[in-house]
Amino acid sequence: MSIDEKYMGRAVELAVQALGRTSPNPVVGAVVVLEGEVVGEGYHQLAGTPHAEIHALNQAGERARGATLYVTLEPCCHYGKTPPCVDAIIGSGIKRVVVAIQDPNPQVSGQGIARLKAAGIEVEVGVLEEEARRANEFFFKFITTGMPFVALKTAMTMDGKIATRTGDSRWVTGEKARRFVHELRNIYDAVLVGVGTVLKDNPMLNTRLDVAGKRDPMRVILDGRLEIPLDSQIVLTSNQQCTLVVTSRKADIGKIAVLEDAGVEVLQLGDKPDFIPLVPVLEELARLGVTSILVEGGGQVNASFLEAGLVDKVYWFIAPKICGGESAPTPVRGTGVEMMDQARKLRQFDLSRFDDDVLITGYF
Amino acid sequence: MSIDEKYMGRAVELAVQALGRTSPNPVVGAVVVLEGEVVGEGYHQLAGTPHAEIHALNQAGERARGATLYVTLEPCCHYGKTPPCVDAIIGSGIKRVVVAIQDPNPQVSGQGIARLKAAGIEVEVGVLEEEARRANEFFFKFITTGMPFVALKTAMTMDGKIATRTGDSRWVTGEKARRFVHELRNIYDAVLVGVGTVLKDNPMLNTRLDVAGKRDPMRVILDGRLEIPLDSQIVLTSNQQCTLVVTSRKADIGKIAVLEDAGVEVLQLGDKPDFIPLVPVLEELARLGVTSILVEGGGQVNASFLEAGLVDKVYWFIAPKICGGESAPTPVRGTGVEMMDQARKLRQFDLSRFDDDVLITGYF
Repeated sequence: MSIDEKYMGRAVELAVQALGRTSPNPVVGAVVVLEGEVVGEGYHQLAGTPHAEIHALNQAGERARGATLYVTLEPCCHYGKTPPCVDAIIGSGIKRVVVAIQDPNPQVSGQGIARLKAAGIEVEVGVLEEEARRANEFFFKFITTGMPFVALKTAMTMDGKIATRTGDSRWVTGEKARRFVHELRNIYDAVLVGVGTVLKDNPMLNTRLDVAGKRDPMRVILDGRLEIPLDSQIVLTSNQQCTLVVTSRKADIGKIAVLEDAGVEVLQLGDKPDFIPLVPVLEELARLGVTSILVEGGGQVNASFLEAGLVDKVYWFIAPKICGGESAPTPVRGTGVEMMDQARKLRQFDLSRFDDDVLITGYF
Repeated sequence: MSIDEKYMGRAVELAVQALGRTSPNPVVGAVVVLEGEVVGEGYHQLAGTPHAEIHALNQAGERARGATLYVTLEPCCHYGKTPPCVDAIIGSGIKRVVVAIQDPNPQVSGQGIARLKAAGIEVEVGVLEEEARRANEFFFKFITTGMPFVALKTAMTMDGKIATRTGDSRWVTGEKARRFVHELRNIYDAVLVGVGTVLKDNPMLNTRLDVAGKRDPMRVILDGRLEIPLDSQIVLTSNQQCTLVVTSRKADIGKIAVLEDAGVEVLQLGDKPDFIPLVPVLEELARLGVTSILVEGGGQVNASFLEAGLVDKVYWFIAPKICGGESAPTPVRGTGVEMMDQARKLRQFDLSRFDDDVLITGYF
């Protein structure tokens, strides 16, 4: 690992602390290093507040002069809610800027770097580029496509069952794996399930972590027939946690009104109670500033997202135990492929363990 | 790693070369070391031929005098098809014997060691005991219970499908994983499937490896209604590879005769065409000297073995791809458990990778 990679690694560490807090902005971390000493650190904490570079430069103060700035994303050069960072960098006397990756927004990409170079600052781009891209995978998807990053999370026994034949699913995985799911909810902007999960499990879909600064994701329920019970935990807590029920235009107006009174937002899409069109759902969520969605649906919702090719990433827990059962539900139902060589292959997949449970993560 | 572990590791390496060749005997490896130099090596190669110790002592010759003998299993002290090894060891002038593990046969366990000690030889027991037990897991099960060691091998997509909704299963895993299955067939005494697999895939169930000394396992087909086609690959090759079809007493006598003429052995067990009693199958196989069975059945056969608690070990391949499909078959069908906390947990499980495929191995 080079010196540059060491400090950029620290900047990435700082950046990801704010995952789920900066939407629709990226997460960014910055480190100022003078003569081998870190003299300033910072990260973008919340949309609308100062950027990472500003925090780090402020902390460095006069010692920014002649120093190197490490930043996980190309500094901005335009006025948004805050002034352009390139001006602050140039004004600070920074001598060299190391950038992990260019801004993916095609309309600004490279301009921040060009401005710095024009001001006589030495600029290097591409240090820990892959790590920086990964750290901002929500933002990269969102800014380049206008659609949220969609991850699918499931947990099954090693024989591919997400519940027993009677529907019991508590618990497939152990405590550590379940805790990790709450860590995911803490960074994804929204969690999405089908109403079947609500009817069966009556979940909260909140972030149950004993850590400072945790926050709950928006809850999105696909519910074509508007079957969500008024006394479900989700409806009962909809004043505390943003809740969106997506239903069809055929849904009962009276129930919509009652739900809205309870604090639930209701969105009507399409005319078929059995089929909520997913792309419009994602477009609507993007419009609301949701850059990332964690799908925790049952086998039908999972299959719908997968068959529509809308899944970017999976978190796939496998518990080393056998449930069995001809009729026990599996994590992906739907029609499925006809021939095995048509199965959708994961790329860049990784294995990790949470006590006895195995987690496969990967991308499509 | 101690010096003793180093040489015992070599002895284990030698032993496992004969896996699948020595049934119903154990595999055994032996190394003779004189003043830090290996002067003799050997392993038991085939039931009825000399034991590992004899090969190693013969190779050492006069240099066995004063040397240390490492052996993966307690040396025998009784006349079988060959004379007792303890006599040869005592006669050779070996000064010290290191034994990985006692003979598990309760009727001989410890007696070989006692004889060596009585002859004034220094004996140490328990070096790499766990590795030595693992190397002989077939034999340990067989000698202590009278029943074969049963392993279940399956290969599924990460969403728990062993074939698509149309039944296509070529291929779930990649080449390396499939090659490993042939390595398993090369060491297991028998491979077992249900007739459904024969009807669907028309498999050979032989060992397709490009290595010297490979051998095919016995094939065992559970076929209560005697549906196996006379022109199936299995029947057509039954003169080359030992083949046992297990059917019910209700099976058609005429077809039995035709199968037997073709070289198939037919065993009739029980009166129910839909239910072959598994324990008698295993007992009969044990009687034939089969110490290990690799179950490669479909979801029904797998469920039958698992629900009867007859599985010792699993080899569970997971291919990182999504097949989907409400009706696509899963690796374990049957009734299944009612509550998730009743699912059968694997212990001592290990993860490995074969290119993109994941293998979970473990024990019940």
